[in-house]
Amino acid sequence: MKYCFLLILLSFSLISYGQNQTLPYLNLEEAKKIADAAEERARQDNWNVVIAILDGGGHLIVLRRMDGTQIGSVEVAQAKAKSAVYFKRPTKVFEDIVNQGNTRILSLPNAVAIEGGIPIFKDGVCVGAIGISGVTSAQDAIIAEAGLKAL
Amino acid sequence: MKYCFLLILLSFSLISYGQNQTLPYLNLEEAKKIADAAEERARQDNWNVVIAILDGGGHLIVLRRMDGTQIGSVEVAQAKAKSAVYFKRPTKVFEDIVNQGNTRILSLPNAVAIEGGIPIFKDGVCVGAIGISGVTSAQDAIIAEAGLKAL
Amino acid sequence: MKYCFLLILLSFSLISYGQNQTLPYLNLEEAKKIADAAEERARQDNWNVVIAILDGGGHLIVLRRMDGTQIGSVEVAQAKAKSAVYFKRPTKVFEDIVNQGNTRILSLPNAVAIEGGIPIFKDGVCVGAIGISGVTSAQDAIIAEAGLKAL
Amino acid sequence: MKYCFLLILLSFSLISYGQNQTLPYLNLEEAKKIADAAEERARQDNWNVVIAILDGGGHLIVLRRMDGTQIGSVEVAQAKAKSAVYFKRPTKVFEDIVNQGNTRILSLPNAVAIEGGIPIFKDGVCVGAIGISGVTSAQDAIIAEAGLKAL
Repeated sequence: MKYCFLLILLSFSLISYGQNQTLPYLNLEEAKKIADAAEERARQDNWNVVIAILDGGGHLIVLRRMDGTQIGSVEVAQAKAKSAVYFKRPTKVFEDIVNQGNTRILSLPNAVAIEGGIPIFKDGVCVGAIGISGVTSAQDAIIAEAGLKAL
Repeated sequence: MKYCFLLILLSFSLISYGQNQTLPYLNLEEAKKIADAAEERARQDNWNVVIAILDGGGHLIVLRRMDGTQIGSVEVAQAKAKSAVYFKRPTKVFEDIVNQGNTRILSLPNAVAIEGGIPIFKDGVCVGAIGISGVTSAQDAIIAEAGLKAL
Repeated sequence: MKYCFLLILLSFSLISYGQNQTLPYLNLEEAKKIADAAEERARQDNWNVVIAILDGGGHLIVLRRMDGTQIGSVEVAQAKAKSAVYFKRPTKVFEDIVNQGNTRILSLPNAVAIEGGIPIFKDGVCVGAIGISGVTSAQDAIIAEAGLKAL
Repeated sequence: MKYCFLLILLSFSLISYGQNQTLPYLNLEEAKKIADAAEERARQDNWNVVIAILDGGGHLIVLRRMDGTQIGSVEVAQAKAKSAVYFKRPTKVFEDIVNQGNTRILSLPNAVAIEGGIPIFKDGVCVGAIGISGVTSAQDAIIAEAGLKAL
């Protein structure tokens, strides 16, 4: 569904690589807007999480840790976002594959098979990702999606 | 001077460890306030930097990268802040030592000998640090200090 | 089948270790030829991949990333090739083992259990490996094999 | 001189960040052209080197190791290029600073203070870097510059 749609967009963009010599990117203002929306969603349910937003090269633009969040989530949120931007797909895709018994994904460098990391696309190009960690992975994903809606 | 004062405060706090069973800490709201003030100072001069704020365990609370900042600064800002919180002293202290020819500091794990990382104290306890990277190290330090004034 | 044959060749080579004092190796010209063939095969289907070719010590000789390939594939292609040369067997062998439920392979340092990494043999000696990443692992393997045919 | 010029170009680009929402990038064809020119220059003097070309996020596009090059150069060439793209300046700048006695640079994460890594700019934006390692650092830099001329 949604991911198929992204794949189609991606294909279009790949075709256009040769034509224009520039690529879209994510700026700080947009990243803050995403983080604000994610944080607001988390507060609604008193969920404490780390919010990490990376650029298209996998480098941090914004990170926030809400009070009381387990410190392990600082790295997990970044790892989820990194997986999403490195493989241009939500970590949920890897989670589903592993849940179906295909555990070989666990040997894939930088892949995280736990929901909560989602790539960010502009004009079909992966310009970054959001990663959430702190509550259950299903809740993490709800927060990530709430963040992306702000873009 | 200022650091001597901190050291004196620190001694008091060490003495009081046994008496009360809590430690002060830095929360997200305070970290954001510091980051906002640092960002505002940077914008005054059109300086593009990464702002990193860590807690007393050396873990990120807030990170922001301003548009156009060299990506190397993402890691450098965190490393400066880590050095500041790990050794409870500004990275400037190590820089001065190295500049005087004591290069052995360069083999000290997690020490960064470049201005721009400053620890944050509350009641004499090191509750975190701010690290700035992106412009010259002297400018980075100006931004870090502007951030701390907001606390 | 093919791998049994390689194992037999390998045994011969092990016996001959004492007799001559040289080992075959893979040079840059050969590595480029392999990479060219792999790249050509990938272009036939508009597949975007990273092609990595390592020597017998596991060190890169050639790497190429086609435009639009997910950046995660830079590390994955190298990891697949490294697994192939470190264990002198295609990553497909580990994938099959894991798919049969033997997940313990996932704890084997440097082993990748995903198709697309194939060792390169000369006179029964493992002189390197090719690793491909970017499309499905079955497609990655098709490209790797097309590359090896050029040798 | 040259670097001042780059800084000026960079400033222009920073100003334009807000205006257009896209950035230039380096493609495989260009990276190959650079690598070909670098390799040709190295062959003129029978210099054996590793040539590494990274994108603007610090990820490999092309790597080549000429026969007989020390294996340590595989990592060194990448580290030089990474330093160049992470800090948007040639590694020569850091080398000069260290040579003048400012050894504190040696504590800067990802900085390499040895000539041979040069960033690649397009319209004032850092789109990648070339890193060379294998001969003397002055010779490495000659090869890197010969490569860049091909762009």
